[in-house]
Amino acid sequence: MYVKLNELGLLVVISGPSGVGKGTVRKALFEMTNHNLYYSISMTTRKPRVGEKDGLDYIFTDEKAFQKGIKQNKFLEYAEFVGQYYGTPIDKVKEMLVKGNEVVLEIEVEGAKQVREKMPKAVFIFIAPPSRKALYDRLLSRGTESKETIIERMEKAEREFKLAHTYDYIVVNDEVSNAANRIMAIIRAEHAKTERSIYKYNKLLEL
Amino acid sequence: MYVKLNELGLLVVISGPSGVGKGTVRKALFEMTNHNLYYSISMTTRKPRVGEKDGLDYIFTDEKAFQKGIKQNKFLEYAEFVGQYYGTPIDKVKEMLVKGNEVVLEIEVEGAKQVREKMPKAVFIFIAPPSRKALYDRLLSRGTESKETIIERMEKAEREFKLAHTYDYIVVNDEVSNAANRIMAIIRAEHAKTERSIYKYNKLLEL
Repeated sequence: MYVKLNELGLLVVISGPSGVGKGTVRKALFEMTNHNLYYSISMTTRKPRVGEKDGLDYIFTDEKAFQKGIKQNKFLEYAEFVGQYYGTPIDKVKEMLVKGNEVVLEIEVEGAKQVREKMPKAVFIFIAPPSRKALYDRLLSRGTESKETIIERMEKAEREFKLAHTYDYIVVNDEVSNAANRIMAIIRAEHAKTERSIYKYNKLLEL
Repeated sequence: MYVKLNELGLLVVISGPSGVGKGTVRKALFEMTNHNLYYSISMTTRKPRVGEKDGLDYIFTDEKAFQKGIKQNKFLEYAEFVGQYYGTPIDKVKEMLVKGNEVVLEIEVEGAKQVREKMPKAVFIFIAPPSRKALYDRLLSRGTESKETIIERMEKAEREFKLAHTYDYIVVNDEVSNAANRIMAIIRAEHAKTERSIYKYNKLLEL
């Protein structure tokens, strides 16, 4: 008999500076077995990178449609970044949480701040690079952005490094599988947290 | 390169009512691979049960020696239970934590309360039965105690059930391997907690 003390899904926010490997870690997390994760696909106005698929990596849209969504409160969070918009459509998130799925957001630091205000019970995980140099090397080797964009991202990373303390957890992306394992452990542990499990526990023991 | 953001070991307190299977879960935990766990062996004045080994399951001692230890502050916690004393020798615990080992205590609810006062950064895990009936069946089937002892344990369990909310986590012992996996996840997650990892993170990024 398997007893689940928390039946609601968790909203798991994976964030951190650009270039830290959020996307790679998130993909490794979803490749793990025995989970109930749902990836909330972000909407963006930026152009697809080579290999990115619409509706899988992002929902690609234009600025006019995005602005309309903002006005209609269709985003749990959104951010403008290097001239492009990124946002999380809210409806699907709520639907999946109620169904008991863990909803994973992989978003910018600015967006995470907005989610913290709207959904304080979410779990906030800051992905950190093993060193400052590792992040810069990664941004440079990506080769998809202009020099100006790279410098802009580095400056932004410097500001974001200082916000790690506002997160619940800090996970170093030293090795992708390590980082994914740590996130999975966090999800399991969070379900056992007394504040999330006490209600069902009291029911279970008729207290 | 593997980066450890928290180098101190965790003090992990596994507690819950008598008969809930704390010992079985603890043993399953230690049989898992890739860990750094150290089991703090309790000292007790009670007689060994069949199969129990001195220095492995408990350090068996007499009441006179135990009382002397109390006076000399040699216990992190101790409790009297059904006429017998149980306690955690403090020296070894401190030694192992500094070495970076996770020190696991498997102790009575009363003892856990004492640890909470002395070491508030410890991780407190309440092991719950899947139902009240499951606990009572277990106490009855054990067959090593008298009827009076069993009734005493049941009454104590009723009082202890109401203290689960004072713990950090509630883990249901529905299946031993499940419970052990959850505890391992809690240990991994706790190391990533911002309050435990921010110091090393700041050093890593020279902030």
